[in-house]
Amino acid sequence: MRVKRIDHVAFCSPDVDAALPPWMKVLGLTAGHREQVAAQKTEAMFAHTQEHEGAKIELIAPMAGNEGLVKFNEKNGGRSTLHHVAFVVDDLAAALKELDAAGVPLIDKVPRPGLAGHMVAFLHPKATNGVLVELVAEHKGH
Amino acid sequence: MRVKRIDHVAFCSPDVDAALPPWMKVLGLTAGHREQVAAQKTEAMFAHTQEHEGAKIELIAPMAGNEGLVKFNEKNGGRSTLHHVAFVVDDLAAALKELDAAGVPLIDKVPRPGLAGHMVAFLHPKATNGVLVELVAEHKGH
Repeated sequence: MRVKRIDHVAFCSPDVDAALPPWMKVLGLTAGHREQVAAQKTEAMFAHTQEHEGAKIELIAPMAGNEGLVKFNEKNGGRSTLHHVAFVVDDLAAALKELDAAGVPLIDKVPRPGLAGHMVAFLHPKATNGVLVELVAEHKGH
Repeated sequence: MRVKRIDHVAFCSPDVDAALPPWMKVLGLTAGHREQVAAQKTEAMFAHTQEHEGAKIELIAPMAGNEGLVKFNEKNGGRSTLHHVAFVVDDLAAALKELDAAGVPLIDKVPRPGLAGHMVAFLHPKATNGVLVELVAEHKGH
């Protein structure tokens, strides 16, 4: 498996609209692709630098019925809290097979569609001492 | 201020040596520059992709006397927990002046040396809804 770069860092909070302005004001980030991901019961959006590929964060908030993320936010007092770190890999399906064969605990054993149509997969956080890692297939644009 | 890219994502845990192996095994990252930062009472190291500039994480652990980080680790049960996200900016001193003038709360109003000799500055986490952000002056290499 070849990890190429960090794709984005994702923060969860109760409200995407409330979480966005500080990143625009403080770091000058621009609001990007936004989507309600029904399968995950999340509202999610990217905010990125002008160079677009240079730095990207993802803001996540729970939609109705997402008790897990509601509890996550309550535990963190409503602050923006790290949800996951995403790395781009050159061949996602092969990477997952390789990790599975090596006994690395995975949430997704095969790629599935993520935000903005990217193919993604999550490792189990116990694979990396509690940090939730997402792998993202190589892509262009957002 | 022009944010160019994410430089690294930093995780704190009780022991850098214990935190490193999963990142090497799971993501194939390589151990990089390591340093005891006496002024911060931290042990810190980078772990990066083979392409080196593509993805970099920082692992941090408290040295003796760093009660703040010891408590941080106790609260998080010894898991690797996000400490800060670092963004590269093109002109760090100018960026800090600009942010200060705009009333953004800063920990460092002027650049100071960070890990591997990079010039850095931290914003106050209340600037970005609880996320600790580090700005790093443009640099080459690690």
